[in-house]
Amino acid sequence: MSFTPTDYLPYDFANRRHIGPSPAEMAEMLEVVGAGSLEALIDDTLPAGIRQAEPLDFGKAMSEREVLEHLRKVGAKNRVLTSLIGQGYHGTVTPPAIQRNILENPAWYTAYTPYQPEISQGRLEALLNFQTMICDLTGLEIANASLLDEATACAEAMTMAQRVAKSKARAFFVDRDCHPQNIAVMRTRAAPLDIEVIVGNPAKMDASKVFGAIFQYPGTYGHVHDFSAHMAALHAQGAIGVVSADPLALTLLKEPGAMGADIAVGSTQRFGVPEGYGGPHAAYMACRDAYKRAMPGRIVGVSVDANGNRAYRLSLQTREQHIRREKATSNVCTAQALLAVMASMYAVFHGPEGLRAIAQRIHRKTVRLAKGLEAAGFKVDPKACFDTITVDVGPLQAAVLKSAVDEGINLRAVGEARVGITLDERCKPATLEAVWRAFGIDRKDEDFRPEYRFPEEMLRTSDYLTHPIFHMNRAETEMMRYMRRLADRDLALDRAMIPLGSCTMKLNSAAEMMPVSWREFSLIHPYAPADQARGYAEMIDDLSAKLCEITGYDAISMQPNSGAQGEYAGLLTIAGYHAAQGQGHRNICLIPMSAHGTNPASAQMVGWKVVVVKSAENGDIDLDDFRAKAEQHAETLAGCMITYPSTHGVFEEAVTEVTRTTHAHGGQVYIDGANMNAMVGLSRPGDLGGDVSHLNLHKTFCIPHGGGGPGMGPIGVKAHLVPHLPGAPNGGEGAVSAAPFGSPSLLPISWAYCLMMGGEGLTQATRVAILNANYIARRLDGAYEVLYKGPTGRVAHECILDVRPFAESAGVTVEDIAKRLIDCGFHAPTMSWPVAGTLMVEPTESETKAELDRFCDAMLAIRAEIAAVERGEMDAENNPLKHAPHTVEDLVGAWDRPYTRDAGCFPPGAFRVDKYWPPVNRVDNVYGDRHLVCTCPPMEDYAEAAE
Amino acid sequence: MSFTPTDYLPYDFANRRHIGPSPAEMAEMLEVVGAGSLEALIDDTLPAGIRQAEPLDFGKAMSEREVLEHLRKVGAKNRVLTSLIGQGYHGTVTPPAIQRNILENPAWYTAYTPYQPEISQGRLEALLNFQTMICDLTGLEIANASLLDEATACAEAMTMAQRVAKSKARAFFVDRDCHPQNIAVMRTRAAPLDIEVIVGNPAKMDASKVFGAIFQYPGTYGHVHDFSAHMAALHAQGAIGVVSADPLALTLLKEPGAMGADIAVGSTQRFGVPEGYGGPHAAYMACRDAYKRAMPGRIVGVSVDANGNRAYRLSLQTREQHIRREKATSNVCTAQALLAVMASMYAVFHGPEGLRAIAQRIHRKTVRLAKGLEAAGFKVDPKACFDTITVDVGPLQAAVLKSAVDEGINLRAVGEARVGITLDERCKPATLEAVWRAFGIDRKDEDFRPEYRFPEEMLRTSDYLTHPIFHMNRAETEMMRYMRRLADRDLALDRAMIPLGSCTMKLNSAAEMMPVSWREFSLIHPYAPADQARGYAEMIDDLSAKLCEITGYDAISMQPNSGAQGEYAGLLTIAGYHAAQGQGHRNICLIPMSAHGTNPASAQMVGWKVVVVKSAENGDIDLDDFRAKAEQHAETLAGCMITYPSTHGVFEEAVTEVTRTTHAHGGQVYIDGANMNAMVGLSRPGDLGGDVSHLNLHKTFCIPHGGGGPGMGPIGVKAHLVPHLPGAPNGGEGAVSAAPFGSPSLLPISWAYCLMMGGEGLTQATRVAILNANYIARRLDGAYEVLYKGPTGRVAHECILDVRPFAESAGVTVEDIAKRLIDCGFHAPTMSWPVAGTLMVEPTESETKAELDRFCDAMLAIRAEIAAVERGEMDAENNPLKHAPHTVEDLVGAWDRPYTRDAGCFPPGAFRVDKYWPPVNRVDNVYGDRHLVCTCPPMEDYAEAAE
Repeated sequence: MSFTPTDYLPYDFANRRHIGPSPAEMAEMLEVVGAGSLEALIDDTLPAGIRQAEPLDFGKAMSEREVLEHLRKVGAKNRVLTSLIGQGYHGTVTPPAIQRNILENPAWYTAYTPYQPEISQGRLEALLNFQTMICDLTGLEIANASLLDEATACAEAMTMAQRVAKSKARAFFVDRDCHPQNIAVMRTRAAPLDIEVIVGNPAKMDASKVFGAIFQYPGTYGHVHDFSAHMAALHAQGAIGVVSADPLALTLLKEPGAMGADIAVGSTQRFGVPEGYGGPHAAYMACRDAYKRAMPGRIVGVSVDANGNRAYRLSLQTREQHIRREKATSNVCTAQALLAVMASMYAVFHGPEGLRAIAQRIHRKTVRLAKGLEAAGFKVDPKACFDTITVDVGPLQAAVLKSAVDEGINLRAVGEARVGITLDERCKPATLEAVWRAFGIDRKDEDFRPEYRFPEEMLRTSDYLTHPIFHMNRAETEMMRYMRRLADRDLALDRAMIPLGSCTMKLNSAAEMMPVSWREFSLIHPYAPADQARGYAEMIDDLSAKLCEITGYDAISMQPNSGAQGEYAGLLTIAGYHAAQGQGHRNICLIPMSAHGTNPASAQMVGWKVVVVKSAENGDIDLDDFRAKAEQHAETLAGCMITYPSTHGVFEEAVTEVTRTTHAHGGQVYIDGANMNAMVGLSRPGDLGGDVSHLNLHKTFCIPHGGGGPGMGPIGVKAHLVPHLPGAPNGGEGAVSAAPFGSPSLLPISWAYCLMMGGEGLTQATRVAILNANYIARRLDGAYEVLYKGPTGRVAHECILDVRPFAESAGVTVEDIAKRLIDCGFHAPTMSWPVAGTLMVEPTESETKAELDRFCDAMLAIRAEIAAVERGEMDAENNPLKHAPHTVEDLVGAWDRPYTRDAGCFPPGAFRVDKYWPPVNRVDNVYGDRHLVCTCPPMEDYAEAAE
Repeated sequence: MSFTPTDYLPYDFANRRHIGPSPAEMAEMLEVVGAGSLEALIDDTLPAGIRQAEPLDFGKAMSEREVLEHLRKVGAKNRVLTSLIGQGYHGTVTPPAIQRNILENPAWYTAYTPYQPEISQGRLEALLNFQTMICDLTGLEIANASLLDEATACAEAMTMAQRVAKSKARAFFVDRDCHPQNIAVMRTRAAPLDIEVIVGNPAKMDASKVFGAIFQYPGTYGHVHDFSAHMAALHAQGAIGVVSADPLALTLLKEPGAMGADIAVGSTQRFGVPEGYGGPHAAYMACRDAYKRAMPGRIVGVSVDANGNRAYRLSLQTREQHIRREKATSNVCTAQALLAVMASMYAVFHGPEGLRAIAQRIHRKTVRLAKGLEAAGFKVDPKACFDTITVDVGPLQAAVLKSAVDEGINLRAVGEARVGITLDERCKPATLEAVWRAFGIDRKDEDFRPEYRFPEEMLRTSDYLTHPIFHMNRAETEMMRYMRRLADRDLALDRAMIPLGSCTMKLNSAAEMMPVSWREFSLIHPYAPADQARGYAEMIDDLSAKLCEITGYDAISMQPNSGAQGEYAGLLTIAGYHAAQGQGHRNICLIPMSAHGTNPASAQMVGWKVVVVKSAENGDIDLDDFRAKAEQHAETLAGCMITYPSTHGVFEEAVTEVTRTTHAHGGQVYIDGANMNAMVGLSRPGDLGGDVSHLNLHKTFCIPHGGGGPGMGPIGVKAHLVPHLPGAPNGGEGAVSAAPFGSPSLLPISWAYCLMMGGEGLTQATRVAILNANYIARRLDGAYEVLYKGPTGRVAHECILDVRPFAESAGVTVEDIAKRLIDCGFHAPTMSWPVAGTLMVEPTESETKAELDRFCDAMLAIRAEIAAVERGEMDAENNPLKHAPHTVEDLVGAWDRPYTRDAGCFPPGAFRVDKYWPPVNRVDNVYGDRHLVCTCPPMEDYAEAAE
């Protein structure tokens, strides 16, 4: 007998994993939105003129198992050697408890940036630990919650120094012993800002000629110098001193603060975060208290909640680019939260004694290594080292490097005749012996009398990590519970939809995440020989090809490791092109009013002037204004920056007119790829006239947000821009990141996503993202006004709900609604962006109809509460909206409110049994900024909180 | 300059990970217990006569990183081929979301058996899903929550059939097409019970001669038969029909219930649980409603809580061996909870359509495979198959098998001239083509018109998995959140101490758990050629050697996959020895009153008679009674079963006298290894006179409890017993488990533990476990009477708190205290065992002083509440003890209790911000047993609960 095969394909990706609604649910939803079919909805939503000609075709989609097998095979093409290259990247031992309970735990990696502090107390505490660790180790008062990488942190320190220096000099001194990639990125950053970078020997620095200076500590070739005198000289001239320091070395060595440094930066990679072929890792920045308001990046601070209990929050947010816009001098808008959390947990786990012991062991091994080499007659430099030495090998450099590779070890080529060796916590006696053999020395590593090789006055004398959090028992049980407790305080994607407009909080699937932990991807040094990274090369090439096909561009640079970094790199590419055409004077950038704040900030960074283009009544770009301004600045038009679909969540048909106009006046077109999740498979920015776009791989391509980083912001460009893409940080021109491919250990996620979805799956995701957004818009229509629809009444993949009228009608603010949503078990939508006083909702394709309905029910119930206030049935102040979010503590005490406990704590949408309880009531923002505390509160507070 | 190296060793295992208290805390604790040093405490606690002579020495302990590298190297010695051997073990695709969120998530794997239902609602729901799935697939009314493996499930079905059959025949018919290991284990089990096993062709079964019969479905060689007629014939004789069925096949084929079967058993391994070289996996058992009280194992049922809300719990616990003791006819006391949860989630994820599609695809591939072979002239059997065929290859069997291995594929040798092939969901076209090549066929796999190869009347016609839980959207986001919600309802080791006496709930460290997921350990078929499992062999040999050194035995058998199974195997070994000595008549087993209920149950299973030995006043074995009974039964004394240190938590000095006496009267000594965590490195059962012991690797050696399984219960024996150890299940004699090494994929955990601790670390763990127990005993002394101390006033690694007086003084029961501890954020200690009305507390070495103090504070506060009732200050019924545990719902409604909400919900010990809230109030046990519901409640209930 025969049978009809089922229509149901168990591994059909498009109906699984990433796509929330079932086919049956989609049918119901289409009925609600009034569309005959999904395709009809899309036709209705996307103007025909902007649809792409051919469907995406990547061949057959792979199953989870196939993709994992494929990645294993490709990963096997990377050769994992012991890299003693140093240069800011070190072998490290990730404690398995941290790997499993943080890096591999969706409660941590699917969280969003902690802008809503009430649902973020866990990661805020972890990041506060990070800041405390950095302040302690550097000896400075204020630290931020991480930056993208050490090289960009150096560049940020340089521009920050310029902002705060009294000196009006235009030059910045750079220690020649800085890591090459740090110098490269500072050079890139300095050029458009007219900063002269003077790379030289610190002994010969002329402090009167510079507004600031940066020193590497220890130096890239291992030198350990005290820069106190340099700091004094700089200060005498009103200039700023920066030290880029290895935090592990600071457990033994005199800290930058003790030298008088104003700013310290560096990388916490070696605190338990694998090299990952370059990233992601958390860089840090710390500074004196006086300069805190000039510091880029996010700072976690201590505040109080509505009941006076301690609560954490992001402090000084007014410094951020999304608020400062054109005034911003940095476009930094993300951090490396997940990696900062890992690094902080590494410090919590090891404590000061542990970190010091790790550093001591590394140093002792370095001394033994040097002695072995010296005993064999080699000349070793420097005498005073921490973990790095260089060896004079004359013309035998290549031979020694090869001999080392044969021993399974990568060393560093230094100059023409030296070889660099940097030891780390993974080094064993066998490692030293292998290095010796590479030098032709047959020697046993014996732990003779330990010895320091730096002057006694360089020894650190101050305490660090004295807070009790760094003095746990080192028992894994205790650590595991601490990490669980913090995770439980937060609301992440593993518990509820996070409908954040413009942030695309979609599924980060387990299959995609798994290869990130594999040693074949995680244990590769970014400057390992290319033939050891063939797997990476294959992945990067294939993913780039797919992204080109998706976007309609001709080439991709993976170097930018955040969206804002991508914008900056894209604009630099355009600037480089103009310069090559003899049009280097072009410096006007047209940016619509509705643009994300990073756009003007990035334009500033390449030295351009921002000209703002008006919005029409319907939220679209005002075409007349655009044309007029393009014409007005035709001679100096560098380009325009637009977002598609617009930040108002609409597919503007006029986009091609905008790009045509720009090109007609000699400008180049930057299309911001933040909303790519509404386009993949349906429309290509390259076809719309874009010359360059960045892609937020952490939005559209499934890299998790990690509680506020990591991210990846590769850029796609048209062929004519290819020669002007960022060069490699070690040798090329125009590098924007510390590592050639940004944060490549994240790329398996995006690659696996593309491979498992296939062209049709990716396109279906886009369609469903649009369906989900239109479903919400329709269900809430009437209760809330949906701002900005397309001509057919459709929204794209997100919609803006106007809640401004309620301020007047009921005294209810957008913040009240956002906090009330916490009671309902949701993270709030994006608040007050792109339009102040509104909520922007983006559900993504990952959410089921049930979850969308739960959200809509919650929003409608909130609207009913507002109506009750409007009608005077509810008190204008003493109501659930104003008291939101409610905590268990509210229930425990006396209840004197005019609504019931049940109504307060279990509004529609809230789960009963599985309710998420925020650990604090509404957090007081003003208090926190007025009483800035950015390190762990003192013991007595801690003990109290522990109760 | 030189420096003094720090005393603090960051990787010193003994001060990290497994050992909770810091050195400073230990000093404080020693002061409290009144001991000058840890060594002094141990000297005080362990009688000198039972201390081992030499310290444990396994060489240098490895760091986490070293052990993971070592395991990677050893794992690489296993060769992962595609095993198409079948025989009950199949390739399967573990959905990564399930792997990451269940198998690799401490919230699931560190949980205990759900005896305390209020803190176990999450895993109880998952296990109820499992039971529902099994009932649906088998077409029977009642299913249990899993058994150890299919072979032991067959044996349990056999003895259950004997219990419930009306027929008084002594024989049991076994289908010759049963898997060989099933037959082997049934033979082992039958022998001591005087059951005759008749293996034969079902067509020739004489139903009048048997009390029951078992049939394999599909048969081990692939046949698909309808056993309806056999069932009718058996029923006509008052006999019981059992089917051992592949649950995946049941998605297409007529179910056992429809054939009239009384009992169905089988393995759910292929529902997403990797082969793991034999285990662990969850076997299942289902039966007709009429026989439910005779069914072994745990059954999850639906009940209500004190507020009438639905709540899950373990039903019919009175059937369990720890209650039935000598009356038990099964010693099954654990399940494979974690694996059952995985299998149930696999079904939830795929749903009925998905499972059916998987089965259809496998069948279609099998048909294509057969056609290809037939087209080349091979004779393929059977015509009616599901996933398995055999091929006649004449004298070329070895050649074809080798040729297949060269293609990367393991096939099965069947008889002398046939080769067996079983396909699974991992098979791809390339797999089929490789198999064909092994047969010399060059053929492309093309998906021609699909075809069934079993008779139409064998097609399943009934529905299954109709409950909404199996009809989620298949979106990973939804699945991930479901698994998170269930996990959050439970209290496991990742949130709090679980001070369960006799259960040794210690840390299961992340590093130990990691290799379990590695493909080199997880993807090996138990009957793969030995040269593909060299890594396993090396691990098993080394771990066995270490366990021998720890226990003082000469050999280890890894086959028993639970502690009770180990007891049974140990007694069988003794019985075999007696028989070989011509002493087969010896059948009296002396067991002290305080023994764990499995002891008498196991003795029953080997056909022995249990003679109970009295306890002395102080809880020790009554030596006089022991001597008298040994003498009385000298002629027939098989042996004794004792536990050391005793189940009363005391190191009895008289143990050597007990063993001497037993030996003197011709008996052998079984020392139960349940309390080995109090002995490792200090005392060895083999030195005390033990002839055999089992070791609970899931207690002392860090295998997690998984919410009620897996476990491993290997036995150590003296040399004279080695010839009588269990043989291999495929060919040997006396097999007790389905696979030669039980559940070997768990062994990396115990091995890594031993390697990372080293001899001294293991010994230190024992010392600290004893310190922690004595610290609790001392802190609670006065408030609670500690029953049973040694002569110096010390307890071993656990202590019994007598709470019986409070029943009279305050009407407070042991259950009230246990439930009140939930309010304090703790899992209760062991209740009413070994002494009714008491609590037995075992903290293990993993807990810090802070956590011990939190527990003691909670216990003291509870004592104060009892005192308030005693003094009449608190109402005898309306008090926090009687209302415990408190839920959020209690807080939401009206509060008319004489104590405050705060006092009710936040007693000392409870965290405020991070409080664990049980999802239900106290569960009504009686209601649940009276209204037995063991499958998912109907839709409307479900919808209600989902709100």
